[in-house]
Amino acid sequence: MNRKFKTLISLFLFALFTGGILFAQDAASEAPAINIAQVGMDTMWVMIAAFLVFFMNLGFAMVETGLTRSKNSVNILAKNFIVFAIASISFYVIGFGLMFGNGSGFIGKEGLFFIGGADTSPLTGDAYQGAYSALSWTGVPLFAKFFFQLVFAATAATIVSGAVAERIKFHSFIVFSFVLVAIMYPITGHWIWGGGWLAAKGFWDFAGSTVVHSVGGWAALAGVILLGARTGKYKEDGSTNPIFGHNMGLATLGALVLWFGWFGFNPGSTMAVGDGSAIAHVALTTNTSAVFAIATATIASWLIQKKPDLSMILNGALAGLVAITAPCAFVSVPAAAAIGSIAGVLVVCAVYFFDKLKIDDPVGALSVHLVNGIFGTLAVGLWAKDGITGAATGNGLFNGGGFSLFLTQLTGVAAVGGFTFIASFIIWFIIKKTLGMRVSKREEIVGLDIGEHGMKAYPDFQGFLTK
Amino acid sequence: MNRKFKTLISLFLFALFTGGILFAQDAASEAPAINIAQVGMDTMWVMIAAFLVFFMNLGFAMVETGLTRSKNSVNILAKNFIVFAIASISFYVIGFGLMFGNGSGFIGKEGLFFIGGADTSPLTGDAYQGAYSALSWTGVPLFAKFFFQLVFAATAATIVSGAVAERIKFHSFIVFSFVLVAIMYPITGHWIWGGGWLAAKGFWDFAGSTVVHSVGGWAALAGVILLGARTGKYKEDGSTNPIFGHNMGLATLGALVLWFGWFGFNPGSTMAVGDGSAIAHVALTTNTSAVFAIATATIASWLIQKKPDLSMILNGALAGLVAITAPCAFVSVPAAAAIGSIAGVLVVCAVYFFDKLKIDDPVGALSVHLVNGIFGTLAVGLWAKDGITGAATGNGLFNGGGFSLFLTQLTGVAAVGGFTFIASFIIWFIIKKTLGMRVSKREEIVGLDIGEHGMKAYPDFQGFLTK
Amino acid sequence: MNRKFKTLISLFLFALFTGGILFAQDAASEAPAINIAQVGMDTMWVMIAAFLVFFMNLGFAMVETGLTRSKNSVNILAKNFIVFAIASISFYVIGFGLMFGNGSGFIGKEGLFFIGGADTSPLTGDAYQGAYSALSWTGVPLFAKFFFQLVFAATAATIVSGAVAERIKFHSFIVFSFVLVAIMYPITGHWIWGGGWLAAKGFWDFAGSTVVHSVGGWAALAGVILLGARTGKYKEDGSTNPIFGHNMGLATLGALVLWFGWFGFNPGSTMAVGDGSAIAHVALTTNTSAVFAIATATIASWLIQKKPDLSMILNGALAGLVAITAPCAFVSVPAAAAIGSIAGVLVVCAVYFFDKLKIDDPVGALSVHLVNGIFGTLAVGLWAKDGITGAATGNGLFNGGGFSLFLTQLTGVAAVGGFTFIASFIIWFIIKKTLGMRVSKREEIVGLDIGEHGMKAYPDFQGFLTK
Repeated sequence: MNRKFKTLISLFLFALFTGGILFAQDAASEAPAINIAQVGMDTMWVMIAAFLVFFMNLGFAMVETGLTRSKNSVNILAKNFIVFAIASISFYVIGFGLMFGNGSGFIGKEGLFFIGGADTSPLTGDAYQGAYSALSWTGVPLFAKFFFQLVFAATAATIVSGAVAERIKFHSFIVFSFVLVAIMYPITGHWIWGGGWLAAKGFWDFAGSTVVHSVGGWAALAGVILLGARTGKYKEDGSTNPIFGHNMGLATLGALVLWFGWFGFNPGSTMAVGDGSAIAHVALTTNTSAVFAIATATIASWLIQKKPDLSMILNGALAGLVAITAPCAFVSVPAAAAIGSIAGVLVVCAVYFFDKLKIDDPVGALSVHLVNGIFGTLAVGLWAKDGITGAATGNGLFNGGGFSLFLTQLTGVAAVGGFTFIASFIIWFIIKKTLGMRVSKREEIVGLDIGEHGMKAYPDFQGFLTK
Repeated sequence: MNRKFKTLISLFLFALFTGGILFAQDAASEAPAINIAQVGMDTMWVMIAAFLVFFMNLGFAMVETGLTRSKNSVNILAKNFIVFAIASISFYVIGFGLMFGNGSGFIGKEGLFFIGGADTSPLTGDAYQGAYSALSWTGVPLFAKFFFQLVFAATAATIVSGAVAERIKFHSFIVFSFVLVAIMYPITGHWIWGGGWLAAKGFWDFAGSTVVHSVGGWAALAGVILLGARTGKYKEDGSTNPIFGHNMGLATLGALVLWFGWFGFNPGSTMAVGDGSAIAHVALTTNTSAVFAIATATIASWLIQKKPDLSMILNGALAGLVAITAPCAFVSVPAAAAIGSIAGVLVVCAVYFFDKLKIDDPVGALSVHLVNGIFGTLAVGLWAKDGITGAATGNGLFNGGGFSLFLTQLTGVAAVGGFTFIASFIIWFIIKKTLGMRVSKREEIVGLDIGEHGMKAYPDFQGFLTK
Repeated sequence: MNRKFKTLISLFLFALFTGGILFAQDAASEAPAINIAQVGMDTMWVMIAAFLVFFMNLGFAMVETGLTRSKNSVNILAKNFIVFAIASISFYVIGFGLMFGNGSGFIGKEGLFFIGGADTSPLTGDAYQGAYSALSWTGVPLFAKFFFQLVFAATAATIVSGAVAERIKFHSFIVFSFVLVAIMYPITGHWIWGGGWLAAKGFWDFAGSTVVHSVGGWAALAGVILLGARTGKYKEDGSTNPIFGHNMGLATLGALVLWFGWFGFNPGSTMAVGDGSAIAHVALTTNTSAVFAIATATIASWLIQKKPDLSMILNGALAGLVAITAPCAFVSVPAAAAIGSIAGVLVVCAVYFFDKLKIDDPVGALSVHLVNGIFGTLAVGLWAKDGITGAATGNGLFNGGGFSLFLTQLTGVAAVGGFTFIASFIIWFIIKKTLGMRVSKREEIVGLDIGEHGMKAYPDFQGFLTK
């Protein structure tokens, strides 16, 4: 028992202690010489969008719980609930500074701790002075910038949760999440959104197909490899033993909540309202990709599995949403339809692909977030239309821009993937050797709810499942 | 298997193909000579409202799943999830153009496909030039107009889903939904919101009691008649065998999500912010109608059923919301209380009425959306107060306006109902004769989850239900 | 049967009747000499925030249902659903006027019924003339002010629901809720937000730790004491028999929905956008308190219960949210972290404390809302930083302000608590002696779903629970 705690309590006390010493100053206290109403409107938009992204935590929790077994529900719910707290604390303590603080092309170095850097937000552009220049393009208070970025950071950590479900130790997951959001996510994020080397190279990722989704996916992949498959998933004869989710109502609910939240995730990434046309454009490309992905995933599932599998339809929608996340502001609506159509097929194939490799991903998180995070990022290089909502991306391959943008996107995918996978592998490896990663076989069979939490999710109906 | 696919794939390829050829241009690209901040604010409002309406898909999915049996849950979830995708695609391909394109009093003829018409939005009123003049009154980008209207169109299709639940073939429902949103919904919608003959006559429907709800209801009624009742619902002796919903938690969740979404549906239909007073007025009439409907539905259920039935209370709320949808911007708050009070009684009586006619509607969709869609539309003719939020409706009967407005409303109800019911009947009939409408009796008894999707919604708890 | 109805119907008819006579005039009809765009933006914000607070009804319903037994689920869902309707009607009829009408320091006296007072909103400050001067500081239409305050009032009533769950008579709960929102909540609310004697004394409660949460908690405490513990909860030997919630998925869903709604509750209480910095500040302190509370509640539960209990983690989050509700706009982010950290421990200890006193609170509502409502209110006196978002609170103890503010806060806590507890006790006592409070022992054992509503929440899975 004590061992489980040492890490948690140390982390927590460290946060409180340093918080007490540094005592992060409250920003945005000086009256800016700017258009108050405009700043107010932009802030309202950014905050509402952030609330929607926050709400995606519910979506992840329900999708992951619904697609796994009832004996592990409490554990999955607890993981998904607490991971947002962990991510909030670690991003507050250090992550935000590493990601957006002024620094080198590789990492942020100013204003590292507790949003504590000097800042003149909401002054924008050249008028801005302070530690977070990479966010000087948007005219909202620093706390709004931080909160919006915080909910994104938490998403990356949540993605991991589903892939390692039904066999990981609760506290080991907590520790990894803390490190991911404190250090790894911010580093690659700095490269792209923090004014780092990939941004300088002309790499584009509007709302985070790479920054958020594929990073979560790579971190999950490293974990799954070290963790191994769930007991009984892969038979000795090489075939796969399907393990069904226990509550398709919650899974569907989760997918719709995620989709709803995505209207904060993508359109919100404008981080300003302007004349609203970018918001409308992004919302429409986002929705278009999702619905076409549903169509093709349904057809693919119908063809392959003979009957349309609901979990494939749901993951199809999510795949379309992940894939359009990078290009949503850079491509036309018909291009979004094409991107979604491909994503829907990709996710179905990827589920079979990972099973073939005996990489056991209970909820399809890798197929959704990693595979389509990569595809969506590359899609910018294929379908980008220069300036379609204002951004000077240059044209993608299909709009006559040649391979230049595509190769830059590919570079980013490889660099972020390589870094995140290796760093995650090392962290997971250390955790495995110290805290341990996997619950006992007996606990796995009885269920993690009893083993990790001493309770059941549905005690009125599960009497017979465990003693 | 192949037969099931032919239709789906044809529709899908048609969409992609024509999309490729026509290559809908991106609108809103020119800088308008207008108040950017105002347009931005209005767009923000319209988009957030649209997100809320989108979220109603979750509400419908949960209400319908909760109020039906667990052996059909996957099927109902899948239907509700995919119907939004189908509606999005068909409204994009053709529906929006038919509904809002400039044309005759009967149908739109310009800018038919893929939002592809010329457009100078966000220029408004006389300054507007383009293919969608009927929406020129609101100063938001074309894509915002489209997206807002899209989520409304999808709602109409979703209403059908509940009424035909627990016995319809999955692919037959998909085909009907596509046609409904592509052709039938837009035609009657054009009459009212697209500048057609009913609008010219002085027919008023603020947010769609008729345009959306009763249209969904009429389409459902035609389907239910052709489909027949669920096996075992009506006994040979003429009595009704109640079939209980399997999850009242999800049903309640769904009702609250719908209510939440209705705050986008009704107040959002201002499609502009102005000084905000119309938004506040509409939100308050909407809420007032819902809560008074809950009160009277509870009392009615208590009196008739001896104990207050939760499904009646939930449907009472929804009835109040449907009934206030047409008049929400045209009546006072006390009038909204009266409208809701009547709606709450109406829905309870309607449930018994349809059972008496052996029209089997598993979730009460007809009682909620058809009956109260009609009532709400007529209520405009009774309680309208000229100019209460700016619209020149003239006064209704109870405000001294005589029968004039009421008769116009009645004309609209009859015309839209007649057209939609007959057209839907024909489409359903064709589907019945070609694809078939109803699953086999054996599949119905075992459950559509196994039959249509090869899976169960709660496999950990349903082992005994099916082999 | 008749007796149950008399009260309900009388209340209802009274509402309709007086509504007909007084015929509340529609406000905001004159064109104000103000910045339309600013008013529009503020109204949009207030309404969206109100929608989020409305959505908290879903959160409460799901938390309370999830944390209780399946045999009482329909009853709890019905209570939570109908309580919003009851609260809406009673706040409309009289509550709003008592709370915000001009009057004495103790109670409102103008514009008492049906929002019927004279009003020049959205004129603000000195320009405002009308019956609701206490709300003249915000420039939104009267209906927006009313609707925002309405959803808060309903929250107070909902809090009671959880504490009295699993044994209270349905109609007795309805009657109490009506009186609470009609009279008691408005009176103490008038003292603080209505320009009453506590406001004059310098008592600060930004979004309602006292006005809403502790009032709900005190009303619940009085009810629980008169109602007694659930059968079987406390053994004769003095030990406690844990009664587990039946659906941790719904409970987690509810907690996340509440958290989401809190972003309307706290940041929305600005009731104006301004430059947005107060909104961003409040959202961040709110979130920070919640996540630190999760951390400490998890640790406390892990230490005390040996394994981290999910219901404690969820209640930890809610405790952090309740505690920061009063001080969210008056304290810094690090202070919010401290407040949350304490709240998370407090709630865990309080659960054990109430069980020790044999005060049976099935869902922990007292530990969350009463205990942390008090703590949060006092926290203003400890951590307040004068003018941090503009309010002239003076400094709290830890910022060098001495005990002055703390003592004022303590006065408010005692006065509001004393009044609400005694008044609630009297009302509950009258209800107990007339309508009765508690269902029969047999009904309690069989479940209130059958007894009060004649139905089950999960009939497909509960066949064995009752005949």
